[in-house]
Amino acid sequence: MSTNERWAAPASQSLRPGPGFRISEVDTGGTPGWRGDKDDAEDHLAARATRLSDLQELLYAHGRAGGTRSVLLVLQGMDTSGKGGIVRHVVGLVDPQGVQHTSFGVPTPVEREHHYLWRIRNALPSPGQLGVFDRSHYEDVLVVRVHELVPADVWEPRYDEINAFEEQVVAAGTVIVKVALLVSLDEQRERLRERLERPDKYWKYNPGDLDERSRWDAYQETYQAVLDRTSTDTAPWHVVPADKKWFARLAVTELLTEALESLDLGWPPPDFDVDAEKARLAAMRP
Amino acid sequence: MSTNERWAAPASQSLRPGPGFRISEVDTGGTPGWRGDKDDAEDHLAARATRLSDLQELLYAHGRAGGTRSVLLVLQGMDTSGKGGIVRHVVGLVDPQGVQHTSFGVPTPVEREHHYLWRIRNALPSPGQLGVFDRSHYEDVLVVRVHELVPADVWEPRYDEINAFEEQVVAAGTVIVKVALLVSLDEQRERLRERLERPDKYWKYNPGDLDERSRWDAYQETYQAVLDRTSTDTAPWHVVPADKKWFARLAVTELLTEALESLDLGWPPPDFDVDAEKARLAAMRP
Repeated sequence: MSTNERWAAPASQSLRPGPGFRISEVDTGGTPGWRGDKDDAEDHLAARATRLSDLQELLYAHGRAGGTRSVLLVLQGMDTSGKGGIVRHVVGLVDPQGVQHTSFGVPTPVEREHHYLWRIRNALPSPGQLGVFDRSHYEDVLVVRVHELVPADVWEPRYDEINAFEEQVVAAGTVIVKVALLVSLDEQRERLRERLERPDKYWKYNPGDLDERSRWDAYQETYQAVLDRTSTDTAPWHVVPADKKWFARLAVTELLTEALESLDLGWPPPDFDVDAEKARLAAMRP
Repeated sequence: MSTNERWAAPASQSLRPGPGFRISEVDTGGTPGWRGDKDDAEDHLAARATRLSDLQELLYAHGRAGGTRSVLLVLQGMDTSGKGGIVRHVVGLVDPQGVQHTSFGVPTPVEREHHYLWRIRNALPSPGQLGVFDRSHYEDVLVVRVHELVPADVWEPRYDEINAFEEQVVAAGTVIVKVALLVSLDEQRERLRERLERPDKYWKYNPGDLDERSRWDAYQETYQAVLDRTSTDTAPWHVVPADKKWFARLAVTELLTEALESLDLGWPPPDFDVDAEKARLAAMRP
């Protein structure tokens, strides 16, 4: 069920960084595991969209019936890597009632007064919900490291702390789907250029994006560390080449579908006497 | 722009309760203002869905650029009136990044310690967002009155208080779209029966729904009072016949589209020097 002819293997396997993984060797224009082209992807996505939506309804029903399971999609990637597009086009496939979306920006003064995981814990999905993090606690070992916002003896223990935190979250019933969207320097330049050329895209542009771009190598290094140190069996990372937007959307749709399938949920049984309720209803006017 | 050939007048006008409005006289199977049938509605909805999505992106961009406007959809209706379906099928048309959805149930112990508007204020949409309330502060003059949870001298002043509250919300930049979904007793029976007959719908059924159904007349009376006393020029109600699900979805899509059009937003101007940024980008590797 989780595999199908078009994917050589489950996307959750194909996209997982293996031993000796090097971020610098990723073909960001690649489509690993996908046996087809863009047109095939569009056809396939239409069918998988329905499946994803159906599975999400099962999860939602499970939560409403007192279940404890949930799914958390963690999206990380450089500016223009397409995090927002994933939310719009993939998360947008399912019922908004079952989605808890949080975008993590520069910490607010209140957030700064707390441990860096405080705001993350507050945003974890409730039972039955699909949580979506646009950026996350990983910024605390990415931008924080690159900009040297705290010394090494502060960020260094965070990898283990994050792993322990995610173990707790998973133990409480959440499947965590971590996605690193990777674009090339060339592709980022094209996307930034487009934002500077189209008045309907100016709002997506921030001069700070170029400052971050100038630190590309440092970010590559910190992403490498994240993938090396926090891709655990409990909460593995998935590396999604994102130069082709259609592939990134297809891949994340598949990853979410596989995560929901792994819960193996059925419709919740009634917690009331069906026949008695039918009789009560029939006895009422009109 | 806000009217079009298929609607006799803007839906926000056609669906607004006029002087002498009586809830008991509403044809819940009607399609007021719509010049067409279900097939026409499906064709029309596809086009309007794109328009709604485009307008919501403008609102989102406006918020990201420091704007203050937002939209709040307030959904009220008896069990099975289709509030959830509106969220799934209408709100689901737009980008989840720009949606803040809140479902208001029985108040929690913490909520009970506060004024009834406290949890409402906390859930108001941020600038640029489409807020969606599945039930709302109106429960505090609906279920609260029907079940006599507080005495009349407590609920009586709430109508004026709600009007004053909504005036503040509108003054702060939010367009409020209040929708009362009305189904008939017959249609509710059919929908409840379906929930009792289909195992994939059991989770939507609650024995308490029949207790509420037995108080139908009392609810009609309190809805009448809500429509009489809180349909203001600042935040008017819209009465949407909901026996035909397709009409309810079409109508709310139109109401939201008209609300977003009323904001008359354009793409935000750049808050940076476009040419300078282009030059900076061009000067960077690769």
